[in-house]
Amino acid sequence: MNYSVLRYTIGKILRIVSLLMILPLIIAFIYQEPLRNKIAFALTVVITYIFGWLLSLRRPEDNHYFAREGLAIVCISWFLLSFFGGLPFFISGEIPNLLDSFFEAVSGFTTTGASIIPNIESISHSLLFWRSFTHLIGGMGVLVFTLAVLPKASHDTVHIMKAEVPGPSFEKLLSKVRDTARILYAIYISMTAILIIILIICGMPVFDAAIHAFGAAGTGGFGIKSNSVAYYNSPIIEYVLGIAMLLFACNFNLYYLLLIKEFKQVAKNEEIRWFFGIFAGAVILIFINLAPNYDGNYLNLFRDVFFTVASIQTTTGYSTVNFGDWPTFSHVILLGVMFVGGCAGSTAGGIKASRIAIYIKQAFGHLKQTISPNRTIVLKQERRPLNQDALISSGNYLALYTFSFIIFLIIASINAPDFLSSFSAVAATLNNIGPGLGVIGPASSYASLSSLSKATLSVAMIAGRLEIVPVLVMFSPRMWKRY
Amino acid sequence: MNYSVLRYTIGKILRIVSLLMILPLIIAFIYQEPLRNKIAFALTVVITYIFGWLLSLRRPEDNHYFAREGLAIVCISWFLLSFFGGLPFFISGEIPNLLDSFFEAVSGFTTTGASIIPNIESISHSLLFWRSFTHLIGGMGVLVFTLAVLPKASHDTVHIMKAEVPGPSFEKLLSKVRDTARILYAIYISMTAILIIILIICGMPVFDAAIHAFGAAGTGGFGIKSNSVAYYNSPIIEYVLGIAMLLFACNFNLYYLLLIKEFKQVAKNEEIRWFFGIFAGAVILIFINLAPNYDGNYLNLFRDVFFTVASIQTTTGYSTVNFGDWPTFSHVILLGVMFVGGCAGSTAGGIKASRIAIYIKQAFGHLKQTISPNRTIVLKQERRPLNQDALISSGNYLALYTFSFIIFLIIASINAPDFLSSFSAVAATLNNIGPGLGVIGPASSYASLSSLSKATLSVAMIAGRLEIVPVLVMFSPRMWKRY
Repeated sequence: MNYSVLRYTIGKILRIVSLLMILPLIIAFIYQEPLRNKIAFALTVVITYIFGWLLSLRRPEDNHYFAREGLAIVCISWFLLSFFGGLPFFISGEIPNLLDSFFEAVSGFTTTGASIIPNIESISHSLLFWRSFTHLIGGMGVLVFTLAVLPKASHDTVHIMKAEVPGPSFEKLLSKVRDTARILYAIYISMTAILIIILIICGMPVFDAAIHAFGAAGTGGFGIKSNSVAYYNSPIIEYVLGIAMLLFACNFNLYYLLLIKEFKQVAKNEEIRWFFGIFAGAVILIFINLAPNYDGNYLNLFRDVFFTVASIQTTTGYSTVNFGDWPTFSHVILLGVMFVGGCAGSTAGGIKASRIAIYIKQAFGHLKQTISPNRTIVLKQERRPLNQDALISSGNYLALYTFSFIIFLIIASINAPDFLSSFSAVAATLNNIGPGLGVIGPASSYASLSSLSKATLSVAMIAGRLEIVPVLVMFSPRMWKRY
Repeated sequence: MNYSVLRYTIGKILRIVSLLMILPLIIAFIYQEPLRNKIAFALTVVITYIFGWLLSLRRPEDNHYFAREGLAIVCISWFLLSFFGGLPFFISGEIPNLLDSFFEAVSGFTTTGASIIPNIESISHSLLFWRSFTHLIGGMGVLVFTLAVLPKASHDTVHIMKAEVPGPSFEKLLSKVRDTARILYAIYISMTAILIIILIICGMPVFDAAIHAFGAAGTGGFGIKSNSVAYYNSPIIEYVLGIAMLLFACNFNLYYLLLIKEFKQVAKNEEIRWFFGIFAGAVILIFINLAPNYDGNYLNLFRDVFFTVASIQTTTGYSTVNFGDWPTFSHVILLGVMFVGGCAGSTAGGIKASRIAIYIKQAFGHLKQTISPNRTIVLKQERRPLNQDALISSGNYLALYTFSFIIFLIIASINAPDFLSSFSAVAATLNNIGPGLGVIGPASSYASLSSLSKATLSVAMIAGRLEIVPVLVMFSPRMWKRY
């Protein structure tokens, strides 16, 4: 481990984010909030900046930079940002417990959207803004992580980056990552801005439009009303948000390709077809299951199902209906799409549509091979054959994912009220969705869980956000050996 | 597909099993049961024998025999045996519904032990005997299937057979399978006989001892008392049965090795260490979780936990306590060991300890590889390196297992009362355990489920018993093409 690169980079990230916290401070002034809110943000900005400044005081002499440094930087940054990002909630007194503040910030930065706030309408504007703004920041971080850092660290073919990251030199990597990041940021911010404008045109107040656009962009799902998007009771807003969530769950490489007019490459993208195929299948199944409850009001039914499935599969977590009351069949379908998640290289969580596609191809390939043992079965992805390494790697990921899921479930089920709650809590945090089912359903919050559960689920959110490996390798002593 | 081999072999199997049904007919005479019971068995014997005789009337001219014929024979036999084996329940009128009779017989032959009989104490001795005897027959079938047929059909290294099955000639294969089968049968029957004697010595009536020995041998779990083994209220019986279940869940190759005095090979067997390691871990965790409920009566607590975990992990399903009332944490651990199951090459179900070991090694190997991308990580099994094919094959199985689980869960959740019930119903049938949690918990039966659920779960039991692939390939048209 190159500790000086680690220290320096984390310091820089903390300094940037501390400056972004000036925005909610301005909001606190605009809405003439009590002094303690202003102090909460000002103090956090100063503490975070000084901490970051101290870390990045001395430039690293040795710039050598490998996969493990990248993973450690990302993982530690996410924890530290969540700690510092949670401070305003705690200092202002609006979330009186430090662990709860941390949980809320983790949930924000990981774009999960799971909340421990029982009554959201009692929270000040500046804190609501900051809470949703962490989705936007987290979403950016995820894009750079999955499109620039991760492909270097893994042999996984799931994350195909346009501009390949070369050699082990820190400066070169950084400049390439910077180029990629700049383009991605531009696309991401433009899309968010357009969404804000459309939501305002649809009749949302400016503040609410910004909040919901941040939530959709990061596929996070923090809202500002206790009944989430149902508050606005507007079909047009629901469809706009629904479509926006789906768009932010698509691979951002595709937008880059659209930008440089490579329409053919976009057209032959396979993942997007799997993503929308699974989405359409889930909508149809739940539609049929719920039809008897809607007395022939199929337009309303479609509206509710479209929004809910979009919200859950893109791992956003906004709600317009209490899907906790839906029948078991619909719950199972929702739990299914929770695990699928969005596309790789997007802000969405879950296992990712491209991996699911590989698993399904593997399963069918295995059946074909059994029927005809002497035939050579070649699995393809994007019309190119999948090599053995890719198959082993995707198998490894499934094993690791299942293993982590079970460990999190075991710990989260200590003191848990029932199986559905603990199972869906792990599913909703490890896949970065937000609301689960049972006591943590869309109509309630994570407030009632034990401290142990909250701490475990915080780690699950970060692990899910970073595709598990970066968090688990932190526990290996080998990782921390000096070169 | 060589249809004449298929027809001929299935016919022979049906004839053998029809003759075995003479045993419950004798029981019906011994216990002087009503005429309709005697007619039920006599009629079934005749119908099944004639059907089998018609099928095997003409010897196949072409003896060529490949993997697909083996899979088709096993899969179709299991369905047909369950149909014919369910007839006595239906004809006698003790299970008035044909689907329910089929479900009960499937559950017996697959050694699952899930029952749709609400009041077991109202059933006649001959039917109780037949029901448990199907466990013994099914267990034999499974041993031959997993140790002789399956290794030929798959590249899976999980099933290591002592006597390798050679070439594609039907006669040669049959003679080798016969040799292996004969040794396995001798071991299996001797162990069952010894268990019956020990249970009688421990104070069980002869009839009850036979029933429970059949249930433990096949790791099936059909009992004859509505409160299962709790009825006998005897610690010694519980420990004997608990240990017996564990022994029948070990790879039968090991007993063969013990027989030929190859103690070294037994000592270095890895799977058995994983199996007992996971078992011990689960016992300890549940013991700690339940300790506050037992008021310091730790001997009783250990007795209950030992028996329950042994029963669930070996996928038997006997119960001495209503573990449906245990806290969520214990439920999660129980669900965990449900999926692990026993060792490969035993009568137990589940994913199998050896596969779980590979998955855990894969997960940790992947982490190590991520930390040191240039290091060559070699995963080992039984001190020999696992090759790429084995890894891909185990990955395929996990993908296929997960995929099937989800499909079964989706269908079984239509009309399901709650998530825990439908989830644990699929887990309990696909892993061949028997009782689940919720409405199908140890204190109740599958009687309340819908016909669709019962039919789905019947297929799940057979799929789980045959390690999924053989059942799924039946749906492929390519499978049925003539050569």
